[in-house]
Amino acid sequence: MIKISVRTSAREEIKDITGDIENAVSEADISDGIVFLHCPHTTCALAVNENADRTVKSDILMSYKDIVKEQLPYRHMEGNSTAHIKTVMTGISLNLFIENGKIALGTWQGIYLCEFDGPRNREIWLKILKD
Amino acid sequence: MIKISVRTSAREEIKDITGDIENAVSEADISDGIVFLHCPHTTCALAVNENADRTVKSDILMSYKDIVKEQLPYRHMEGNSTAHIKTVMTGISLNLFIENGKIALGTWQGIYLCEFDGPRNREIWLKILKD
Amino acid sequence: MIKISVRTSAREEIKDITGDIENAVSEADISDGIVFLHCPHTTCALAVNENADRTVKSDILMSYKDIVKEQLPYRHMEGNSTAHIKTVMTGISLNLFIENGKIALGTWQGIYLCEFDGPRNREIWLKILKD
Repeated sequence: MIKISVRTSAREEIKDITGDIENAVSEADISDGIVFLHCPHTTCALAVNENADRTVKSDILMSYKDIVKEQLPYRHMEGNSTAHIKTVMTGISLNLFIENGKIALGTWQGIYLCEFDGPRNREIWLKILKD
Repeated sequence: MIKISVRTSAREEIKDITGDIENAVSEADISDGIVFLHCPHTTCALAVNENADRTVKSDILMSYKDIVKEQLPYRHMEGNSTAHIKTVMTGISLNLFIENGKIALGTWQGIYLCEFDGPRNREIWLKILKD
Repeated sequence: MIKISVRTSAREEIKDITGDIENAVSEADISDGIVFLHCPHTTCALAVNENADRTVKSDILMSYKDIVKEQLPYRHMEGNSTAHIKTVMTGISLNLFIENGKIALGTWQGIYLCEFDGPRNREIWLKILKD
């Protein structure tokens, strides 16, 4: 298992980790296979989405804030229930393809850690299986 | 990596691609294993849900439209922010089991491409690992 | 393919199945690899989230009820459209890592079956691949 460290810098942030994942895959020196990602936290998630226009990231966070209401009578005393809910909606487990030593992504796709309760030091775990 | 082409026919559409995936698995001639799906786009997603009553599909799209508001002050200039958000909520990465050469699905499960910004020509990418 | 039976006990319930998955992995006697989970139903889902404070589970269900409105003009006649929608939002496919014969989870992570249309007898399907 490979562990990648990620430092987030705001309460909520969609942080591009494509380069970190690509570096780990490159070091593993595997030509063709699948890389599996696991986010070991409960208040941040993994997503794949738009890598070009950065306004998409702020639009996602704004919409998520509208969808998952802050003012419901939550019982969890840490005050971060919305972060748990957004994480469950988004997911913490991904599989991506490796072709010719590189991660196969669509033209507009980047890989993101979605921080919903930062800033914090986070980890992403990877495993790679060969074809 | 196997690539499947899918043509969607509306702005929003939940399109059954079970047969396409089954054909690809059948051609790969693998008895037992796992098929991994990757949707290489940022405004359409992958889901597994009800295959019998087609009203479930329209109910999902109606509810998604209620959940992800069109009238928020989105900054992304292409006008399809809601499609990006729905894609992140739904996911673009799946793993399904192959048993005796066929995809193992529950009785009521079908595999769907969820188009949120069509109509378009879309691709789904597959990789298969043997048990 | 390994099948695990789960009995849910309410219309909506987030039920901890970490022990069931750990037992299945333990019986498979595999030191390092990946366990893949598939939920073969269309009105319950799989999630990984907080294992310590049980109020997180009720907060998630409360928020989901706020997000996916019960009173929309759904056309599906079985009256459980919201359960289908919550399932699509949450997902039914997971991959988790096995290290030294145990499932590698973050400190606060547990594995959950999210029941949205119970109580029912449910199944979770597993496959394991070695590193």
